[in-house]
Amino acid sequence: MKTTIRDIAREAKVSVTSVSLVLNNKKNTIPEATRERIKKVAKQMNYSPNQMAVGLVTKKTKTIGLIVPDISNAFFADLARSIENNLSALGYSLILSNSNNSLKESRQYVDILVNRGVDGLIISFSGDDSDDVKEKQSLVNTLNQLDIPLISLDSWMEGLSCPGVSVYHSKGGYFATKYLIDLGHKKIGCISGKNGNYSSDRRLKGYKKALEDADLAFNSSYVCEGDYQYKSGYNCGKKLLDTDITAIFVSNDLMAYGVYLAAKEKGIRIPEDLSIIGFDDLFFSSMLSVPLTTIRQSVDKLGELACDLLFKRLKNINLEEDFIQLEPDIVIRSSTKKL
Amino acid sequence: MKTTIRDIAREAKVSVTSVSLVLNNKKNTIPEATRERIKKVAKQMNYSPNQMAVGLVTKKTKTIGLIVPDISNAFFADLARSIENNLSALGYSLILSNSNNSLKESRQYVDILVNRGVDGLIISFSGDDSDDVKEKQSLVNTLNQLDIPLISLDSWMEGLSCPGVSVYHSKGGYFATKYLIDLGHKKIGCISGKNGNYSSDRRLKGYKKALEDADLAFNSSYVCEGDYQYKSGYNCGKKLLDTDITAIFVSNDLMAYGVYLAAKEKGIRIPEDLSIIGFDDLFFSSMLSVPLTTIRQSVDKLGELACDLLFKRLKNINLEEDFIQLEPDIVIRSSTKKL
Repeated sequence: MKTTIRDIAREAKVSVTSVSLVLNNKKNTIPEATRERIKKVAKQMNYSPNQMAVGLVTKKTKTIGLIVPDISNAFFADLARSIENNLSALGYSLILSNSNNSLKESRQYVDILVNRGVDGLIISFSGDDSDDVKEKQSLVNTLNQLDIPLISLDSWMEGLSCPGVSVYHSKGGYFATKYLIDLGHKKIGCISGKNGNYSSDRRLKGYKKALEDADLAFNSSYVCEGDYQYKSGYNCGKKLLDTDITAIFVSNDLMAYGVYLAAKEKGIRIPEDLSIIGFDDLFFSSMLSVPLTTIRQSVDKLGELACDLLFKRLKNINLEEDFIQLEPDIVIRSSTKKL
Repeated sequence: MKTTIRDIAREAKVSVTSVSLVLNNKKNTIPEATRERIKKVAKQMNYSPNQMAVGLVTKKTKTIGLIVPDISNAFFADLARSIENNLSALGYSLILSNSNNSLKESRQYVDILVNRGVDGLIISFSGDDSDDVKEKQSLVNTLNQLDIPLISLDSWMEGLSCPGVSVYHSKGGYFATKYLIDLGHKKIGCISGKNGNYSSDRRLKGYKKALEDADLAFNSSYVCEGDYQYKSGYNCGKKLLDTDITAIFVSNDLMAYGVYLAAKEKGIRIPEDLSIIGFDDLFFSSMLSVPLTTIRQSVDKLGELACDLLFKRLKNINLEEDFIQLEPDIVIRSSTKKL
C-alpha cells in the first residue's frame, strides 16, 4: 500500500491538515520541531505526494479534461490529438472521456473529471438525446456551476455561459449546397445529423438558405435524418437514392462513406450519376475510390484556439471574443460533377 | 468556490478527518452530537461530496484508466470505444490518455491516472523511444509497483508482471507473408513499425519465419522500418518500390494507405503490378480505391478480454491464463493477386 498523508499524520501524531500544509510547503504556524518531525516521518515512510491530495490543497493539477461525443469518429480523435499537442507544449496533460453520443453521459463525465481535479475542461457535446430538453438543461446547469474554466468546442447550447470555438457550421452547409447549385444541380438531397444537434442543425440551416437564395424549393422528402454514424449514412443513402436527386450534401464525411456503399449497391456511379459533398475532410476522404469533395474544418486550428481560450481563462485574461467561429473551406475532389 | 471538507471542518470546529469519516459513513467513535453538527454544517454550506476526497478514503472510484499510444490511429480509437462499452455495461467509467508514442509520456500518464484514483489500469504501449532501455526499465518498474490491477493490451515488455491480451502478432505476420508466397510471390517486401516495438518486432518475425519455411532467402534491402504512421508508409513505399519486389507485407493498415499513394505516384498498379497486404483491418480498409487485403484483429474481442481480465483481477479471481493471444484472421480483398 502507498503511504498516505493520513498514515503520516497517525505516525507523527499530528492532524492530516498539518501534514498536508507542511508537505505542500503551504504557509503555516506549525512549530519548527513538528514540521521537521512530519518531514522525517514522510521520508521514513517513503511517501510520494499523491496528486489527489495535492489537488485538494493547491487546486492545481496541470491536467485538463476533454469530453468528446465519439472517439471512434476520426474528427474527434484528431481533435483530441491536436489539443494534446497544444497542452503538452505548455506542460499540461490531458485526460479524455468519450460520452458515447449521450448528453447524460457527458454530464456524468463532467462530474468525474472535475472531481478528479482537472484545472480546466473542454467539452464537445452532441447527443442522441439532443432533443431531450430536460437532459439538455441539466447539462447546462452542471456546466454553468463549475468553478474551473470551461470551453465549449464544436458545439453550443442555449443558456451556456462559457467561451467557445467551432467552425461556422451554417456557412459550411451553405457553401456545400451553393457549390452543388453552381454545378447546375437543382434536386439536391441532404443527410443531416440528429435533430437538435448543434452542428447538424446549423449545417442543415445553411443547406436551406442556399436553396432559398437560389430560388429552389425546399423538398422535405429530399432530407433524411442520420446520426453522424457511417451506418445512418448508408441507410439514408438507400432512401434518398430512390428519389430523383442528382446531388447530395452529407453533413459529415463518415455518413458520406455510407452513401458510397449505398450507391455502389444500387449501381449508381459517383460522380457520373450522383454528386456527393461531405463535411469535415477526414484524412481518409482523399483516399476513397472516388476522392470526396468536402467542407474542411481544420482540427489543428480548432484545437489551438480551444487551448488558447482555455489558457486565457486560466490566467483570468478577458476575452475579446466569446465565441469564435472559424471560416470553413471547400476542398474540391472527384465526387462532384457539373450536371 | 466549491465547499470542501476543510471548510466544513473549520466551520464545525472539528478535524478534517472527522468530517471525512462522518460524511463518508465510515466507522468512527465521534460523539452523536458532533456527527449531527458536521452533517448540519455540510448541508448549510451546500456541500457535495468530492470524488477526489472520497477516493482517498474509500479507494473505490468506479473509474478505469486507459493509456494508448496514438488515439488518432483508428485501431486505438476503436479499441477505446470497445473498452468503454464493456466498462459502461458494468457501471464503470473510462478516462483515457494518449501517450503520443512515447514510453516516457506513458509513465507520466500512469502517475497522473493512478494519482487520480482509478481502480484499475489498461495500458497499451509502443513508443518512438522503444529502443531506449532505460526508459523501458523505468516504465516496467513504475507498472510493477502499482497497487491497483493492471492489464497490458496489444503489447508487452520484458519483466512486466501483469496479465495481458493481444493478437498473436507473429502468427499474423506469418499468415500475411505465407498468403503472398502461396500466390506465387518470391520477392516480398516488408514495412515494419519501429524496431523494439512489441507488436512490430513480432510481425516482422512472422514475416521472416514464413520466408524461411518456404526456402526463400531473407533480403534486408526488402525491409524498411516505419513507425506505424501513414507518412512512414509512404516513405518506405517510395523506397521499396524502387526494388524488384512484386508484393509487400505492411505491418499496419495506416502505413499500407501510404504505400497506395507511393504506388500511385510511381504509376504502379495495385494489384496488377504490386500485391499489398496490411494488418489491423481498419474500418476504412474496405473503402479504399482498391479494398485492402489485411490481417484482422478484432478490437471488440480485444476490448472484451482486456476488461474481463481486469475485472477478474479487481475481484481477486485467479487467472487461468496470464497472457492471452488471439488468433488473427486474414481478410482477402482486392489488393493481392496471383503472380
